Amino acid sequence: MTIRHYLQFKDLSADECAHVLERAAHIKKKFKAVEKYQPFADPDRTLAMIFEKASTRTRVSFEAGMYQMGGSVVHLTTGDSQLGRAEPIEDSAKVISRMVDLVMIRTFEHSKIEAFAAHSRVPVINGLTNEFHPCQILADLFTLAEYRPASSGKPLDAFKGKVVAWVGDGNNMANTWLQAAELLGFTVHVSTPGGYEVDPVLAGISNRDCYKVFKDPREACAGADLVTTDVWTSMGFESENEVRREAFKRWCVDEDMMRQARPDALFMHCLPAHRGEEVSAEVIDGPQSVVWDEAENRMHAQKALMEFLLLGRLA
Amino acid sequence: MTIRHYLQFKDLSADECAHVLERAAHIKKKFKAVEKYQPFADPDRTLAMIFEKASTRTRVSFEAGMYQMGGSVVHLTTGDSQLGRAEPIEDSAKVISRMVDLVMIRTFEHSKIEAFAAHSRVPVINGLTNEFHPCQILADLFTLAEYRPASSGKPLDAFKGKVVAWVGDGNNMANTWLQAAELLGFTVHVSTPGGYEVDPVLAGISNRDCYKVFKDPREACAGADLVTTDVWTSMGFESENEVRREAFKRWCVDEDMMRQARPDALFMHCLPAHRGEEVSAEVIDGPQSVVWDEAENRMHAQKALMEFLLLGRLA
Amino acid sequence: MTIRHYLQFKDLSADECAHVLERAAHIKKKFKAVEKYQPFADPDRTLAMIFEKASTRTRVSFEAGMYQMGGSVVHLTTGDSQLGRAEPIEDSAKVISRMVDLVMIRTFEHSKIEAFAAHSRVPVINGLTNEFHPCQILADLFTLAEYRPASSGKPLDAFKGKVVAWVGDGNNMANTWLQAAELLGFTVHVSTPGGYEVDPVLAGISNRDCYKVFKDPREACAGADLVTTDVWTSMGFESENEVRREAFKRWCVDEDMMRQARPDALFMHCLPAHRGEEVSAEVIDGPQSVVWDEAENRMHAQKALMEFLLLGRLA
Repeated sequence: MTIRHYLQFKDLSADECAHVLERAAHIKKKFKAVEKYQPFADPDRTLAMIFEKASTRTRVSFEAGMYQMGGSVVHLTTGDSQLGRAEPIEDSAKVISRMVDLVMIRTFEHSKIEAFAAHSRVPVINGLTNEFHPCQILADLFTLAEYRPASSGKPLDAFKGKVVAWVGDGNNMANTWLQAAELLGFTVHVSTPGGYEVDPVLAGISNRDCYKVFKDPREACAGADLVTTDVWTSMGFESENEVRREAFKRWCVDEDMMRQARPDALFMHCLPAHRGEEVSAEVIDGPQSVVWDEAENRMHAQKALMEFLLLGRLA
Repeated sequence: MTIRHYLQFKDLSADECAHVLERAAHIKKKFKAVEKYQPFADPDRTLAMIFEKASTRTRVSFEAGMYQMGGSVVHLTTGDSQLGRAEPIEDSAKVISRMVDLVMIRTFEHSKIEAFAAHSRVPVINGLTNEFHPCQILADLFTLAEYRPASSGKPLDAFKGKVVAWVGDGNNMANTWLQAAELLGFTVHVSTPGGYEVDPVLAGISNRDCYKVFKDPREACAGADLVTTDVWTSMGFESENEVRREAFKRWCVDEDMMRQARPDALFMHCLPAHRGEEVSAEVIDGPQSVVWDEAENRMHAQKALMEFLLLGRLA
Repeated sequence: MTIRHYLQFKDLSADECAHVLERAAHIKKKFKAVEKYQPFADPDRTLAMIFEKASTRTRVSFEAGMYQMGGSVVHLTTGDSQLGRAEPIEDSAKVISRMVDLVMIRTFEHSKIEAFAAHSRVPVINGLTNEFHPCQILADLFTLAEYRPASSGKPLDAFKGKVVAWVGDGNNMANTWLQAAELLGFTVHVSTPGGYEVDPVLAGISNRDCYKVFKDPREACAGADLVTTDVWTSMGFESENEVRREAFKRWCVDEDMMRQARPDALFMHCLPAHRGEEVSAEVIDGPQSVVWDEAENRMHAQKALMEFLLLGRLA
């Protein structure tokens, strides 16, 4: 079996993505029924998690998910190991991947995770880099398909032709939405303040048909099936906080903005959220918001992803 | 099943407390016999531990206990997540409680753990707050019933009419002893330096019959079945260290003080202990001290508590 | 069963060492065949790991190894507990060893781990001290026996009469090599810069026949079956960095030095390595280097060691 990594959204084909989403639904059902499903117990499969940025959500979703699947977790923080500092990343990859079955990395530069994966004997998962956040988009799509399933029952049919409005920073989340749109055939309406635009080259998409740019976030929301945003200042950019606050003022998803979208539009947010900044309390705590299911779905989507990377395509 | 939390000692009824203590004895017996007992293995039950104050004892007792029961643990420190900082506690509670089966929190303000519990989908356990330390008192009562069992064999009968002398700071431990005394029908003799008194309102008791206040710690020990104390300066109060050293000078449990108690009186301490401050080496390392069993019993009492909160009343 | 610790290499007899190495080979085989082998699952056996020095390699090898064997791990860092600070080491040992089945400690002074072991109810393993690193040498010997097995198939026969060249710092690794050589009947050629010599008293060997000292590292390598080294500046000695760089200049294992050794000599390094300092890139990344297998073998050797300490001699 060749080693498969999940560093960018497009590392899975559309068909594989559909498979993972179907497995996620299956695995979630078992969890909700309090049923045992432990494909990682015999023999024990261990996930190493390497965090150069702290994160409760990524931490708990991967770790609890792994335990539910019968596996184990070694949690490494920067205090334990800083990639590329005590030794070349290549050496760390060679050593760690001899001892565990799977590696998740949350770091800054995407190049670091690529260097690790190039020398790893086991699958590597991107748990967030400055450039991409593929696990989150997988969870978001899973949540969309759960709330707005296609009549065919096939997950990919739930996305075809859909419009996702991305309001705010042209960041790793926005980049990943673009990759997903190109792969799965939907459109992203992107509205960012000037200076925070998405860069299609950095996003790694091959043509620009999958997204449209809007200066006015309200226009981006027009006709959207899903409105989604992120904090104005992501981790690592705290020094820009004041400048960003000013620049992003009009990019708050409030009830008025949601009214531009389809009446049945959903609201998502990868959390943590800052009410009154990128989203109003009325929206995130309102009837269109599915953020808590979205958060839980991180775990189930990642369980399905880990199952695929470790055990291949299960029936 | 409604969700049950364990934030204060009185969150269990007397009858439930008796049940948990009986289960603790049963579970400890299996441990000592090196027998497997893993009610949390099918499916896997995961405990999230949130530490805003570090603690070896609480850490190891909960974590090892959970493993012995077949479950798993996600250990979050302040570095990973500070409650109420990156996001409202309510949001953290909603997200984390979607992914795990049980949450233990060790924090400063009791209000934080209450806010978390109010929005949690799963049971929350108080692993120590500024106001209460119910797991420790559960362990202490378990230890008392082990060393001085009632002839009836019923744990609650072991406490009825007993006298517990609390010598030292009117802190979270003292508060919790008061709650236990009111619930289970014993009396606490409290002696604290001036300015460090227990506050019955803060302790959450409804009448004052369950405790008596003594200026002289020696008098508090008179007739006691159990003498117990805590460090003079609890975590978070380090800046008061010098003032407290002076104020608490006479509140050292030494052999002379133990002689005031019943001849078969036990000595307990939640540890870590500072020999020569709140307790003399002769006492803590002497024949009446049961502190090592008490420490081990934290683990067994907590296992029984987790069993009750997660699985209800088992036979 | 009396409690066995592994604080120094010689804490195992030669015969026990042979047993552990045989079990390591057996356990590794199962791992490579993706076969379940979980002797620590029924009942759950828990390892407490106490790190006063961070370490990715020791961390992952013990933790993943424990999971593969079906056991659990509580990972304590200095942030959680500093040995001898909040409470006497003796108290920590008494408490922790009531709750877990095995303790691994990585600390500075060897006296700390001895104090812990003296009061522990469960086996204690040295995961590195300033003075010794027995788990690493166990892994190195396992690797040597794997690459250069004796015709008898017995691990100890693989070492008899062999020559190991130690090039560099007369540190904990060097000390442990000396103990191993005395116990198992091989010779260490030691070459260190002046001022960094090994001390046979500190190394804990009873006669000096097991090693020879060479001023010139090239001469130490002559006839060696294995050439091995370590970073010039170990953790805790960072302030001496500049002085050491100057002193160790000639103690770089490069291709010329390897040519002095036997043509089939192996190169080992406990990692992390600094290419261009203690070893050239050509050597560590060259055909004689077995450092990646050596790193993986830490895990298997330690699994076998833990099996022996916890369960005794298995067939």
